[in-house]
Amino acid sequence: MKTENRTRLRIIPLGGLEQIGMNITAFEYGESVIIVDCGMAFPADDMLGIDLVVPDITYLKDNADKIKGFVFTHGHEDHIGATPYVLKAVNAPLYATRLTMGLIEHKLEEHSLLNNVRRKTVKYGQTINLGDFKIEFIRTNHSIQDAAALAITCPSGTVIHTGDFKVDYTPVFGDVIDLGRFAELGKKGVLALMCDSTNAEREGFTSSEKTIGKTFDKIFAENSTNRLIVATFASNVDRVQQVINSASKFDRKVVVEGRSMVNVIETAIELGYVKIPENTLISIDQMKNYPDEQLVIVTTGSQGESMAALSRMAAGIHKKVDIKTGDVIVFSSNPIPGNEKAVSKVMNELIGLGAEVIFQDTHVSGHARQEEIKLIYSLVKPKYAIPVHGEYRHLLAHAKLASEMGIPKEDIFILRSGDVLELDQEFASVVDQVQTGAVMVDGLGIGDVGNVVIKDRHKLSEDGIIIVALTIESGSGMLIAGPEIVSRGFVYVRESEDLIEQAKAIALEAAEQNLNRKVKDWNKMRNDIKDRLGGFVWKQTQRRPMILPVIMEA
Amino acid sequence: MKTENRTRLRIIPLGGLEQIGMNITAFEYGESVIIVDCGMAFPADDMLGIDLVVPDITYLKDNADKIKGFVFTHGHEDHIGATPYVLKAVNAPLYATRLTMGLIEHKLEEHSLLNNVRRKTVKYGQTINLGDFKIEFIRTNHSIQDAAALAITCPSGTVIHTGDFKVDYTPVFGDVIDLGRFAELGKKGVLALMCDSTNAEREGFTSSEKTIGKTFDKIFAENSTNRLIVATFASNVDRVQQVINSASKFDRKVVVEGRSMVNVIETAIELGYVKIPENTLISIDQMKNYPDEQLVIVTTGSQGESMAALSRMAAGIHKKVDIKTGDVIVFSSNPIPGNEKAVSKVMNELIGLGAEVIFQDTHVSGHARQEEIKLIYSLVKPKYAIPVHGEYRHLLAHAKLASEMGIPKEDIFILRSGDVLELDQEFASVVDQVQTGAVMVDGLGIGDVGNVVIKDRHKLSEDGIIIVALTIESGSGMLIAGPEIVSRGFVYVRESEDLIEQAKAIALEAAEQNLNRKVKDWNKMRNDIKDRLGGFVWKQTQRRPMILPVIMEA
Repeated sequence: MKTENRTRLRIIPLGGLEQIGMNITAFEYGESVIIVDCGMAFPADDMLGIDLVVPDITYLKDNADKIKGFVFTHGHEDHIGATPYVLKAVNAPLYATRLTMGLIEHKLEEHSLLNNVRRKTVKYGQTINLGDFKIEFIRTNHSIQDAAALAITCPSGTVIHTGDFKVDYTPVFGDVIDLGRFAELGKKGVLALMCDSTNAEREGFTSSEKTIGKTFDKIFAENSTNRLIVATFASNVDRVQQVINSASKFDRKVVVEGRSMVNVIETAIELGYVKIPENTLISIDQMKNYPDEQLVIVTTGSQGESMAALSRMAAGIHKKVDIKTGDVIVFSSNPIPGNEKAVSKVMNELIGLGAEVIFQDTHVSGHARQEEIKLIYSLVKPKYAIPVHGEYRHLLAHAKLASEMGIPKEDIFILRSGDVLELDQEFASVVDQVQTGAVMVDGLGIGDVGNVVIKDRHKLSEDGIIIVALTIESGSGMLIAGPEIVSRGFVYVRESEDLIEQAKAIALEAAEQNLNRKVKDWNKMRNDIKDRLGGFVWKQTQRRPMILPVIMEA
Repeated sequence: MKTENRTRLRIIPLGGLEQIGMNITAFEYGESVIIVDCGMAFPADDMLGIDLVVPDITYLKDNADKIKGFVFTHGHEDHIGATPYVLKAVNAPLYATRLTMGLIEHKLEEHSLLNNVRRKTVKYGQTINLGDFKIEFIRTNHSIQDAAALAITCPSGTVIHTGDFKVDYTPVFGDVIDLGRFAELGKKGVLALMCDSTNAEREGFTSSEKTIGKTFDKIFAENSTNRLIVATFASNVDRVQQVINSASKFDRKVVVEGRSMVNVIETAIELGYVKIPENTLISIDQMKNYPDEQLVIVTTGSQGESMAALSRMAAGIHKKVDIKTGDVIVFSSNPIPGNEKAVSKVMNELIGLGAEVIFQDTHVSGHARQEEIKLIYSLVKPKYAIPVHGEYRHLLAHAKLASEMGIPKEDIFILRSGDVLELDQEFASVVDQVQTGAVMVDGLGIGDVGNVVIKDRHKLSEDGIIIVALTIESGSGMLIAGPEIVSRGFVYVRESEDLIEQAKAIALEAAEQNLNRKVKDWNKMRNDIKDRLGGFVWKQTQRRPMILPVIMEA
């Protein structure tokens, strides 16, 4: 629906709540709409065959003429990944810090959009004007550099959106989060704080990224005769930097392996976000020129993703790296919920090949814990609290913190995607709902796979399919070919010939009875065959394959 | 293969190593074989549509005449669940403690085997003679009562198998693990220790089950006006007992919900393993007669299993329990690796319905940590260490502990399923391999679903299926019906009519060209249609559905 012009700010999350990933939020005031982040999500376990998920942007399409631009908090997939898909429907200029923009541009290039989209790189402290909005980019810390919080100002007031952040007093690259600026804005008065909830259930303070550097030094020192392999998230540029630092200290060459990591690191190197001492980085093909104790491989696959480099090494199908006795493999990441089993499988395979696996004290989160969240509240002193980034349980834990920090319960809003929160100094309430949802991307198709298709894939995956084909002469109404029975994913046919023969007899009987009764409604006949065969198969096997009669007329 | 008579003990794990579940180990000496445990496993994520997995027992079938009996350590599914399946192939008497036997009998009844199997209930301290073996049942602690370690003696020496265990100085039911007996056997000399590795990566000591009782009391006290729902493992009888204890203290009625839990608890009550104060237990239908603050529901579903009672409550499809604002739900279990996402989903749904979710400090493990494992080593002082129960990484962590406890490296054996470890005082080595593996159970079929079927189910689940049916007159070789195209799980057909029409045209062209060339080899024609259509579909959609031409002759 096209909305009327408003004289009160509206905040409309189009994704990212009640779920991890797919962060995208619209801000609307008067004739202006801006969009904060444009992320993708990984498909849920039950979305069989789906490659990725992007947000339903019906609201943006309906208000396309108002859209002044996209602003981004940082360069992770769950904040930038849907950009090419969304831009195809709604083109508007993009604003981001330098590394974030570099990573977005890489995506645009893959989708051949680079020449069709206006872009502007923004520096920390800089403010851009987009219609009725002013947006200031504020330095934060996260597991990728150039992360920014956004101070979004319109006549209703200033909203601070933290993006994903942590407070790191000793970051690996760049400076500490600009707490002073948060404080200044707080003094001036902040209407609402939209703050990261990912770690809101965790007490205390997230450790500095630098602590990992110390662990790495220790691991390098203790394994001076072994080849080292460090697995982490492709996008964790700081972590890769720390491997490089330790490698340089301990005289090792560094190989970066895994397509997505190579992409990110190449962009980061180009833009100067990774510092590499000369002659430290080598290609994977140069590895053979160095003994084990002079090598460290940084790689993707820390989440046990089946096609990632480390998983292929563990399975013995990596073309350039054979795991061998003595290799020391460091998992520098925690498993994301849902990946534990896959990670454990890879670890077991590596150990089985004689490698040693290290996974304790080798990772810190990029997200603020309770004390950091409280710190931000104490500086910003917002009128309203709007927890963002996290599942419902995390948002609720965050709301409790906000309440402890003195925000009245009625001024804390746990939104759901699609909620329209209208707010200014006098008023704040969810006043409407817009259409939202997850659009499934499968191959080239965006949104053409819906619930019917997914339901069929489920049924097929459980017990397979039985196809019953038969041909009827249209004039005489006689069965002239079939029933032919073909099954896939149901039973091993060679060992179930009897079962298939009996099924054929039942299908034949059903078809002939229908034809004798001069039934001309093929749908009725199809259903009759389906029911009888389904009943027989269930009784014999207690399985429910999809049964698909194909009736042709000659 | 039928093995020769041996004058040295052979230990042959037929499952349970390199995996969680499916614990089953054969002990062979001379003319005697005994089997320790007979567990099932849950299907791996890639075993689509499979209900459960049981061990390949080719070795047992080949040596059926030697089998003297099955002995069990405790009544969990991963130790008893395959018993009915295995007994159908290899019938031999069963020996177990009372609760364990009660749970096994429930299974036999379901499979109508109760009258065909000899059984003997054994007490702690009792020794049974099975051929060349003597087996003593020793009291241990675990998350189910009546757990036993086994001291298995034959002329080669005594092997102690701990089963799953922990050291609980204040157990909820029964007495502390019989450490004295472990010590006595240690003094006499133990050939080998087969000890639980599940928690071998964890430092320290597993807390007593009783600590949970205190947490429960606190939760009951703090939520005196709310309905309580406690979710835990169906088989955790002690945990249910503790809910009952707190309920009785705080004057609440207890409802047990969830089929598997009701089964286990009914057996436990019958045999006297749960103590219930009068008028405490009520049926789910009586709930309506009591206000919320007088109720506690103990339920299955703590692992987010989609069909379990709690998950149905969370999804709003449970017939008797509606979750409402104010309900307090306690997850009294940790997610098993792989279930984290499902558990989180259920938690989010519950919170979304207004319930409060408690999951911290509400569970202790039933497995020994490092200090407990070391304690057993220090008492038993085995010559050989054979870590059992756990994935490879856990076995390896256990092996390190054994080494720290003074077992020489060459006397520690990390076995794989199928390894034949031959051992006595002078000799220990893996001397052979027997066939092992996972047999998939799908409905009534045991082992009839193999890799071909699973591979097809995968393909079907990813991109669906396209069926191309056509009929050829056998005399003339003319196409008289079709090609008819039907797809499932590929695209939403109503919105892809063009694509399907084009596909039909391609199939028609392929068929006619083949027929014009008088091709009579339908296989060749099938492959030609498959290739052309596959190429077209990939180009249009970048999907690879299964393409299945069905050619009939009239």
